[in-house]
Amino acid sequence: MSRVTVSELLQGAPKNWGKWGPEDEIGSLNYLTPEEVLRGVRSVRSGKTFTLGAVIGHPKGDPVWPGRTGAMKLMTQDKGHYLSHKVDAAPGGLEYADDYITMFLQGTTQFDALGHTWYDDQIWNGYDAKETIGGMGKASVLPIAEHGVVGRAVLLDMARHRGKPSLSAGETFGVEDLLACAASQNVDIEPHDILVIRTGWLKVFYEQGPEAFYGKVFNEPGLTYSPELVDWFQRMEIPVLATDTIANETTVEPETGVVLPLHNALMRNLGVLFNEILWLEDLADDCAADGQYTFLYVGAPLKIYRGTGAPVNPVAIK
Amino acid sequence: MSRVTVSELLQGAPKNWGKWGPEDEIGSLNYLTPEEVLRGVRSVRSGKTFTLGAVIGHPKGDPVWPGRTGAMKLMTQDKGHYLSHKVDAAPGGLEYADDYITMFLQGTTQFDALGHTWYDDQIWNGYDAKETIGGMGKASVLPIAEHGVVGRAVLLDMARHRGKPSLSAGETFGVEDLLACAASQNVDIEPHDILVIRTGWLKVFYEQGPEAFYGKVFNEPGLTYSPELVDWFQRMEIPVLATDTIANETTVEPETGVVLPLHNALMRNLGVLFNEILWLEDLADDCAADGQYTFLYVGAPLKIYRGTGAPVNPVAIK
Amino acid sequence: MSRVTVSELLQGAPKNWGKWGPEDEIGSLNYLTPEEVLRGVRSVRSGKTFTLGAVIGHPKGDPVWPGRTGAMKLMTQDKGHYLSHKVDAAPGGLEYADDYITMFLQGTTQFDALGHTWYDDQIWNGYDAKETIGGMGKASVLPIAEHGVVGRAVLLDMARHRGKPSLSAGETFGVEDLLACAASQNVDIEPHDILVIRTGWLKVFYEQGPEAFYGKVFNEPGLTYSPELVDWFQRMEIPVLATDTIANETTVEPETGVVLPLHNALMRNLGVLFNEILWLEDLADDCAADGQYTFLYVGAPLKIYRGTGAPVNPVAIK
Amino acid sequence: MSRVTVSELLQGAPKNWGKWGPEDEIGSLNYLTPEEVLRGVRSVRSGKTFTLGAVIGHPKGDPVWPGRTGAMKLMTQDKGHYLSHKVDAAPGGLEYADDYITMFLQGTTQFDALGHTWYDDQIWNGYDAKETIGGMGKASVLPIAEHGVVGRAVLLDMARHRGKPSLSAGETFGVEDLLACAASQNVDIEPHDILVIRTGWLKVFYEQGPEAFYGKVFNEPGLTYSPELVDWFQRMEIPVLATDTIANETTVEPETGVVLPLHNALMRNLGVLFNEILWLEDLADDCAADGQYTFLYVGAPLKIYRGTGAPVNPVAIK
Repeated sequence: MSRVTVSELLQGAPKNWGKWGPEDEIGSLNYLTPEEVLRGVRSVRSGKTFTLGAVIGHPKGDPVWPGRTGAMKLMTQDKGHYLSHKVDAAPGGLEYADDYITMFLQGTTQFDALGHTWYDDQIWNGYDAKETIGGMGKASVLPIAEHGVVGRAVLLDMARHRGKPSLSAGETFGVEDLLACAASQNVDIEPHDILVIRTGWLKVFYEQGPEAFYGKVFNEPGLTYSPELVDWFQRMEIPVLATDTIANETTVEPETGVVLPLHNALMRNLGVLFNEILWLEDLADDCAADGQYTFLYVGAPLKIYRGTGAPVNPVAIK
Repeated sequence: MSRVTVSELLQGAPKNWGKWGPEDEIGSLNYLTPEEVLRGVRSVRSGKTFTLGAVIGHPKGDPVWPGRTGAMKLMTQDKGHYLSHKVDAAPGGLEYADDYITMFLQGTTQFDALGHTWYDDQIWNGYDAKETIGGMGKASVLPIAEHGVVGRAVLLDMARHRGKPSLSAGETFGVEDLLACAASQNVDIEPHDILVIRTGWLKVFYEQGPEAFYGKVFNEPGLTYSPELVDWFQRMEIPVLATDTIANETTVEPETGVVLPLHNALMRNLGVLFNEILWLEDLADDCAADGQYTFLYVGAPLKIYRGTGAPVNPVAIK
Repeated sequence: MSRVTVSELLQGAPKNWGKWGPEDEIGSLNYLTPEEVLRGVRSVRSGKTFTLGAVIGHPKGDPVWPGRTGAMKLMTQDKGHYLSHKVDAAPGGLEYADDYITMFLQGTTQFDALGHTWYDDQIWNGYDAKETIGGMGKASVLPIAEHGVVGRAVLLDMARHRGKPSLSAGETFGVEDLLACAASQNVDIEPHDILVIRTGWLKVFYEQGPEAFYGKVFNEPGLTYSPELVDWFQRMEIPVLATDTIANETTVEPETGVVLPLHNALMRNLGVLFNEILWLEDLADDCAADGQYTFLYVGAPLKIYRGTGAPVNPVAIK
Repeated sequence: MSRVTVSELLQGAPKNWGKWGPEDEIGSLNYLTPEEVLRGVRSVRSGKTFTLGAVIGHPKGDPVWPGRTGAMKLMTQDKGHYLSHKVDAAPGGLEYADDYITMFLQGTTQFDALGHTWYDDQIWNGYDAKETIGGMGKASVLPIAEHGVVGRAVLLDMARHRGKPSLSAGETFGVEDLLACAASQNVDIEPHDILVIRTGWLKVFYEQGPEAFYGKVFNEPGLTYSPELVDWFQRMEIPVLATDTIANETTVEPETGVVLPLHNALMRNLGVLFNEILWLEDLADDCAADGQYTFLYVGAPLKIYRGTGAPVNPVAIK
């Protein structure tokens, strides 16, 4: 149980509802204008690229939010089908392999739809939460996917900043930590920057296994709620928060016991896009090596009609 | 039936097997070095962006290769579950919607793995076709997804070039048509350019319906085999062929009746990446309007372990 | 559009709500007491058995209600996986094949849950239709599956009775036709008999193909609504209606244009179980040959938690 | 690792291959002739019925063989879809709920196909194990499903016989234990009887949870291999072995370390049908109460085309 409700916690907290009109479904993504795209392009120097998606159907399993399950990928045909005469080659002799997947749309690296979470029966921009029934009638991931997410990003390597391979379960940080991390990296966070925060947490799943990752009670490290943090996001007009954790914030806010308050304070209320479960290890190693923590971020989730979220394999271009 | 086999048709045709070593799984993607990424970045002018993925779970259905089926997307929870007391809010009051999908991995805009098609029991680079059994042991889509596809792209709008809203079923074109199209657009195709060819065909599915799209015998318009075409691709070191059709080439090669010979001549033999089922209408309208047919292409398919292909929502940055 | 609503059509029609208490979820299945089981057992003479399920994943496709899709069955492992070293034999050398399915729970021979259809916001026994949200909280198929359906059944071969291989699209019959058919077969319909009605319609799918089966507008042959029919079902205390059509009744009631009124008049209001999409050809041939139209029916759908229906392969024991 | 291979262990062990012709796919099910059906019918006394399937999608999870996963059941529409205007009522006002499932075909109470397991590259009746590739070309579950399984069954309550609520992990028993159990129950095992053996193990999953059920190393209690056991099954012409465990035998044969030798000795070699994961608690309580351990068993798995197995909800009629 929590000591307060999220509704009480966020009483009077800022909202961007209506800022981009009553029909808006992409929120802070509106900040990423063509000019911001060009600002991102100008951050490219060497042409090195990094892909930030997690492997889907990894032999060690896929890290997912408790209650979700990993992807199931199966062959619909392969060379075996030809060998056992279940399938014939096409005229001329072409043969091919094909496959099929079942998965949670948020079961890997993904963007949340702005309407993915809510409280008090309203989702982003004030739409009725009933719009989610049977598929996201409003604030689905589709408008985000149609727009695409392109802009200048800053990597904030909180794990390196704290001198650890990865943060610990439940370990938190706030806006002052972000700024200190940026300072230690000699990088300025500019308005409209995409924030990419590394905790090292995703690596725990693959290196230490599910037991270490999930623990007795699942409690990820991450950003945690404060009024200052929310104000800073609003003032800096941050369009996207991306991290290498399942939910981009510490699972339980330690002061109040409220679960995932930033999903509501930042995503529902301000329209900040959440890009979760990123693989940041290779990018972070490279940034530490060359000291360049800014890059062009390009990520467009799949265009899932009425989706609550959609997988993406973002690309960082340095 | 075909008059010759693909094996006969491609007797003596060029191969890039071994060119990037015996363990290579990404083929012509090797051409896209950091220098080529920078060349692509230099093609950006206005910061306009276009996403090239098709909608998944479109209300009008999803265009797929015959034998595949469209995606099935279902809610695992939404506001209805809270209303009917099937799910409780999290501590503090957070509620959320979540969903699940079943789909063919090549059932929308996607990259083929290099080992997706073959003849004579060998896939790209000479790997045994048995590697495909139970999942792509070699030449899967995963190394492509880990690398990412970033470079300068040229749009060749064949439909506009021919003065049509879309090419007709079975309509073909070859290398000389590509060059004539480029000339008419006042654009040079440079070595290592990603080729993005618009036929207008995908639009037929949404505007005229499945009957018009599939016809009595499915036969897409597209590039068709010639030795000159294959030589040109090899000489120009084209890394990627991308189109707005299901299979990137005319379904049946009209001279011989061989099905999809370019999948083998270009993909299996040369290692050219195939990016299929793109939505090019908005991009093409814009290119026709501003006369800029080159752009930075950024597309990284999902990192599907052992996948025969994987969905992607590519981004064009002009 | 229909000329009246089902609510108007069934104004004053009989209901069995509350007859078996406010918590009842199995309706007319209550009629099948152990005594009725013994009556069914006594109808067995020769020990011949017939299975009445349709093939799932049939090479010709699966006949389903428009909007549903056929099953997708895929191997998770087979001998190919061992040959290509994707899987190792168990200690001692055991190897095995395994598979996975995705399907509509009503995409083959199945029992409807009593709450499967409704009007005026109430399902069987008066439960709120909101109970269906996110899974059947009331009147699911589970209590039916736990009980099992065992009793004496009578085959009424309407197609043979009318001298046709199968009834035609939209062809209807009523209670007097059922009685005439029974008379022509020299069989008495007794109270509590399971009614198994053959129209020959399912065979049309396999023999004439989907075009003949679905037509331009899907309209199955079958029973059609009349107040007399409903009264007869209630008076005879018929526990189960089973047919070889998708929906057990003519799709559109020809007088009024109301879609599937018997689902509401018999299932929702009286609690009659609907067992649909049966394969009756072999059983019917045998009944015509030996003149024995009664048998022990044994069918228990799968125990799907909160299911709207569940597959079953019923057995007829003559 | 095992000390011998299953091939060595079963050197010279009996086989029924060819006994029912070179095309046979149902093995010992051939023993269940109409006469045997009538013998089963004669065992019915009171008309009490019990359904023996496990719940699919149970709130506590579904017990499955390690590596398989539980079923995922999702609504495709329900009252919520009408409330949120995602779906319209049919003409006249009918509304309905519908659902979809993804599951392992052996992820609940099911019959194995005779070709489900093998060694030395041959499945039942000597068919090549390559027949399993891409679907069971031979010895699939379909012929079993088409035939149906009807006959006299005997419940052997090994847990009660040993005075325990359930056998312990890895606990074994053999043919002499079966006979002693039958004697203690005052029941004769007759030739062609379906053997239904209760260990109480399935209940452990629901009552004690997955940790107790799976343990550190999964090792079910059950029958274990001996030459005498195999000879007895062959001599008694037992058609079906059914138990309340996942695999019908102790997971690891303790003498040799061979995994699941009876799957090969009984199913692959003799053609004995395996019916697994039964819910026997209610039936067993009733048998203990009235002393009647024989009954008519009726079970027909779903007719899955080329299936390695198929779900079933068997009915016991006492």
